[in-house]
Amino acid sequence: MWRDLAPVGRSATSGGYFRQPWTAAESELRAWFAEQCAARGLTVQTDGIGNQVAWWRPDGEPAAPGVLTGSHLDSVLDGGAYDGPLGVVSALAAVDELRERGFTPSRPIGVGTFVEEEGSRFGLACLGSRLVTGATSWETARELRDRDGVFLADAVTDAGLEPDTGLLGLDDVGCFVELHVEQGRDLVDREAAVGVASRIWPHGRFRFDFAGEANHAGTTRMEDRRDPMLTFAATTLAADEGARLTHERATFGRVRVEPNGTNAVPSRVTAWLDARAASEEALQSLVDDVSRRAGDRAGHDGTTVTVTAESVSGSVAFDPELASRLSALGRSPDGGTDGWPVIPTQAGHDAGILSAAGVPTAMLFVRNPTGVSHSPAERAETADCLAGVTALADVLADLAR
Amino acid sequence: MWRDLAPVGRSATSGGYFRQPWTAAESELRAWFAEQCAARGLTVQTDGIGNQVAWWRPDGEPAAPGVLTGSHLDSVLDGGAYDGPLGVVSALAAVDELRERGFTPSRPIGVGTFVEEEGSRFGLACLGSRLVTGATSWETARELRDRDGVFLADAVTDAGLEPDTGLLGLDDVGCFVELHVEQGRDLVDREAAVGVASRIWPHGRFRFDFAGEANHAGTTRMEDRRDPMLTFAATTLAADEGARLTHERATFGRVRVEPNGTNAVPSRVTAWLDARAASEEALQSLVDDVSRRAGDRAGHDGTTVTVTAESVSGSVAFDPELASRLSALGRSPDGGTDGWPVIPTQAGHDAGILSAAGVPTAMLFVRNPTGVSHSPAERAETADCLAGVTALADVLADLAR
Repeated sequence: MWRDLAPVGRSATSGGYFRQPWTAAESELRAWFAEQCAARGLTVQTDGIGNQVAWWRPDGEPAAPGVLTGSHLDSVLDGGAYDGPLGVVSALAAVDELRERGFTPSRPIGVGTFVEEEGSRFGLACLGSRLVTGATSWETARELRDRDGVFLADAVTDAGLEPDTGLLGLDDVGCFVELHVEQGRDLVDREAAVGVASRIWPHGRFRFDFAGEANHAGTTRMEDRRDPMLTFAATTLAADEGARLTHERATFGRVRVEPNGTNAVPSRVTAWLDARAASEEALQSLVDDVSRRAGDRAGHDGTTVTVTAESVSGSVAFDPELASRLSALGRSPDGGTDGWPVIPTQAGHDAGILSAAGVPTAMLFVRNPTGVSHSPAERAETADCLAGVTALADVLADLAR
Repeated sequence: MWRDLAPVGRSATSGGYFRQPWTAAESELRAWFAEQCAARGLTVQTDGIGNQVAWWRPDGEPAAPGVLTGSHLDSVLDGGAYDGPLGVVSALAAVDELRERGFTPSRPIGVGTFVEEEGSRFGLACLGSRLVTGATSWETARELRDRDGVFLADAVTDAGLEPDTGLLGLDDVGCFVELHVEQGRDLVDREAAVGVASRIWPHGRFRFDFAGEANHAGTTRMEDRRDPMLTFAATTLAADEGARLTHERATFGRVRVEPNGTNAVPSRVTAWLDARAASEEALQSLVDDVSRRAGDRAGHDGTTVTVTAESVSGSVAFDPELASRLSALGRSPDGGTDGWPVIPTQAGHDAGILSAAGVPTAMLFVRNPTGVSHSPAERAETADCLAGVTALADVLADLAR
C-alpha cells in the first residue's frame, strides 16, 4: 500500500506532497482507497464532499454501533508522506491482521477517511469532520474560497462529487480511533514505538491585516513611509519571543504582500498566526499579547493592524477511560504488557472534532524519530509503523470483541 | 489623451494600474500610442520587443541627429497614473504646442516609449532601454522568467512581437529628454512646478534567500525550529534601521514564502531588497551591513542566507551643460525666466540608461504634491502638468532650433 501511495501528488523538486482536497491527486487517493476496500470485500460509501467509510460487518446485522478507525489522505502544501496516510494504511492493515488472526468482530469495524483535514486549501482545518459533526455548517463552508478565489462548493462539484447527496452519518459510530504519526518527540523521549493521546492543546488561526501606504521604494524618505512590512516583521519576532517565554507555540508561516513589487513599499501585508497553548486561557493571553505588540508597533510605523480569528479549536480531552483502556493494551518489545505512554499533542486532528461532538474517541501515535512534520523530511521507521498496525489491531479487537 | 488612458489596466478594487509588459493592457497602450502618432501625421516604428518611436522630420532630410523625448507606458503592480504615461502624453502635447506656435524644427524631434521600465514582470528595470543601449544583451534577457515561469522571449512573441526583427537604433538620437512626475517632494519644498534632474542615486535589487526547515507549526517546540521567517523579519527591521541612520533607502517590498501554509514553519523565504544611496560606496556599505546582520541572525535561527545582486545601477550624472541649459529656460509664473531648480532623484529611469550609454540626456520633473509614487494615490495637479508640457516644448524648441 505504501508503494502505491508514494508517487501520488509528490513534488519532483522537494520530494514533498501536494495533496490538496478536490484536486487530481486527492481524487486518485480516494479511488485508491475504494479499490483497497473492494479488495477486502468491503463496500465504500463516499459522501457528498468526499468523506469515505467502509464497514466490515460480521454476518447478521449486529445490534451494537461500530468501531470506526482511519485518518485523512490530504496533505499540507509540500508535506510529508505519513501525516494522514499512515492512519489510513494502518487501518486497512489492521483489518488484514485481525482476519489473519481469525478474529470475528461482534460489532462492525469501519475504515474511513475525512477530507481537508489540513485546511491547506480552504483555511479551515478538519473541514470534513467538522461538517459531519455539524461543528461547521454546509451553508458556511460552501462560501469558503481558496487562494484562487474558487468557492468550496464549486471545488467539490468540479471534483465529481455531489454535495447535495448529504454527509456521512455518525449514528453507526460507537467510538473512533485514529492512528497518526507523532509530530513531536515525546515518544522518542519515552523510548516507545506507540503512544496514546491524552488531549489536544487548544489552538487557532488568526489573520493579521497590516495596512499602510504604497509608495516608491527609492524616492520615499524612510521617515515619510507607512510600511506594513515593518509592522509584520516586528510582530513575527514578538510572536516568536512570546511563545518561547511561555513554552507555547506561535508561528507566522503564511504571508501575502500587496503589491509585492521589489521597488514599491507595500500597501498591505496579510499574515496568519498559528497559535497553540496548554489551556484556552493561555492561548487567549498569547494571542492578546501578540496583538497588543502588533498594535504598538503599528502606531510607531504609521500603519494599522486588525486581527481576525479565522478558526479556534478549544481544548480536547480524549475519553480518559478509553485512553487508559488502550494504554493498558500496550505491549513491550519482549511481548509483555507494560502499557503505552499517554501523551498530549499540540496538533489538531479529526479525532478532536469527533471527541468534541461527544463520540468516545482515542488516538494512537507512532514514533517519529526527528519529530519533523509538515515537511518532506517527516518520517517513521518501518518497525515502528508495523508496531502501530499491531497496536491498532489489538485495540480494534478489544473494542469490537 | 489622459481620458483615453484612464481606464486601461486599472483595478476596480484599488484604482491602481496593472500595466505589465507584454500583457493585454500594455498592447492596448502601444496601439493607442501608434494612433496618437498617426493622428499627428507621424509614423511609428515598433521594434522587436515593443519599444516605439515616431519622428517628426522637417521637410528635407536633416543632417543633424534628432532630439528624442518620451518615457514609458508600463506600470508597477498597482501603480499610479502618472509614472511613465505623463512623459509620453507630455511629449505628444509638446509637439502639438510647438506646431501651434508655428515652430519648424531644424533637426528631427522624436517621441518614444521604452518597454518594461519598471521591471515589474521580469525583475530587470529599464529593460527596453538596456537592450537598446546594449547594457543588457538579448541572449541574457530572453532567458529571464516572470513569476509564472514564462520566459521573456515567449512573452514577447505571445504579445505579437518579433524579437528577431531587431531593436531601435540610437544612431538617430542626438540627445534624449525624459519628462517624469517627481517621486519625492523636492519640488514641493522648492515651490516649483517643474525641475531639472542633476543625477540618479546608484541603486540595486538584491535577492535574499533564507533557508530553514519546514516543520509542524503546532508540535515543533520553538527551540527545535529553524524558521527562516524569523531571519527575514529581523533582516527587514535591520535594513530599515540601517537606511534611516544614513538617510539612504532600503526596502523589502517583495516576499515569497514556501510552502506558505498557516500550520507549517516555512522551509524557505525569498525576499528582495531594494537599496539606494548617494554614492556607490555608500550603497555597497548599506548592502554589506544588511547582509552581515542577516547572516548573524541566521546563525541565531539555525537558518542560512545567501545574497544575490539581481541588478545594480551605478550612479548617473546627467550631462551638466545640458542640465544648466535647460534650467536656464525656466519660466516663473509671472513669465520671467528665473530658472528651474536642479534636483537629484533616487529613482531609476530610461534616461539614466541612455545617459550611461553616452547619449547626452536630461530629465524634467513635474511637481508631485504628496511625493507618493508607485501607488494608486500618486498624483499631480493639472496646472503643473500643463506647465510641464510648456517646459518640454520650450526645451525641444531650444534643442531643435
